[in-house]
Amino acid sequence: MNFRYPNGKVYKKPERTTLTKQKKHDYSNRGMILEDDINETNNYYLRECIAVIHKKPTPVQIVNVDYPKRSAAVIKEAYFKQASTTDYNGVYNGRYIDFEAKETKNTTSFPLKNFHDHQIVHMKNVIDQKGICFVLLRFSTINEIYYLEAKHLLTFWERQTNGGRKSIKKEEIENLGYKIKLGYQPRIDYLRIIDKLYF
Amino acid sequence: MNFRYPNGKVYKKPERTTLTKQKKHDYSNRGMILEDDINETNNYYLRECIAVIHKKPTPVQIVNVDYPKRSAAVIKEAYFKQASTTDYNGVYNGRYIDFEAKETKNTTSFPLKNFHDHQIVHMKNVIDQKGICFVLLRFSTINEIYYLEAKHLLTFWERQTNGGRKSIKKEEIENLGYKIKLGYQPRIDYLRIIDKLYF
Repeated sequence: MNFRYPNGKVYKKPERTTLTKQKKHDYSNRGMILEDDINETNNYYLRECIAVIHKKPTPVQIVNVDYPKRSAAVIKEAYFKQASTTDYNGVYNGRYIDFEAKETKNTTSFPLKNFHDHQIVHMKNVIDQKGICFVLLRFSTINEIYYLEAKHLLTFWERQTNGGRKSIKKEEIENLGYKIKLGYQPRIDYLRIIDKLYF
Repeated sequence: MNFRYPNGKVYKKPERTTLTKQKKHDYSNRGMILEDDINETNNYYLRECIAVIHKKPTPVQIVNVDYPKRSAAVIKEAYFKQASTTDYNGVYNGRYIDFEAKETKNTTSFPLKNFHDHQIVHMKNVIDQKGICFVLLRFSTINEIYYLEAKHLLTFWERQTNGGRKSIKKEEIENLGYKIKLGYQPRIDYLRIIDKLYF
């Protein structure tokens, strides 16, 4: 059965992708759904005392701050800075966890331009320190999420640097990564993969 | 020999504490020297491939952003948010490292008001996950820095909650903590304490 607006138009349940599109100019729209789901997941882990993993705040270069009497300081001029690390980190059973989450609308490959040079360098450093480092890759059109160890991402990055393709083929991700079934609580249970791989 | 200004006044080499005082209204002045020294230390650890430890960006609630054509987005209105975690975290030899750094001008005790409730909760959570969690406490007047395990801070916090004193006595810190000798490179070599305690 269709519901109708007072003007007769059929009511269509808003899709989350539509919401994202509307926020076209919002700096933070890129990867918004994935981000929400990961935040929910991390909140769940925290609440249930499973792990302590947080998203880092967006790095901002503050230029001008106003200090009105009797009220909170207002930042009047600031700029977005490029992050020098990945977005998420924390601790799970003593081990250091570090990851980045990205989305693409592509269905057959994941473009490497989603990552920055210093994120790649950071991942290398984390691996050298024996941290658990990975990426969560979401194919938004087909709503599939994969866990891919950072070491594999580094290999594909290297391939690109040597003149190879600028993306990772989906079948490469399927072969080397782990598909994460979406759940209710937690939504993206990436720690189950870590359990299998590290504990 | 004294140097003199053109007006005859003796030139006094500015002390770092003076610099901090001048920045009285700067949000980030609290713990600035300590912060600088820790950032230098972390950069050293990173450069020398000893550890990957970063300060988290200051959390900011962004309210209004301007997107001028052909130039970078400008944040026009934003507010400082209270951090829900500690300021520093990262990985050292596979282990998760998490700490907060604070300064006081007091010479005989360290006021607990330097910490927030949710930082304390965060530290508890990190300890439960077997992370390495501690605080760096600086007595700025006498320029002494101590490493104190978070578990001890939690005990003192508990004591306060139960009606006890609102600060930690310096001698308690001396007894339970570890004094860090200031160095040149790195300036505050807190990993040496961690080596002794955990490895």
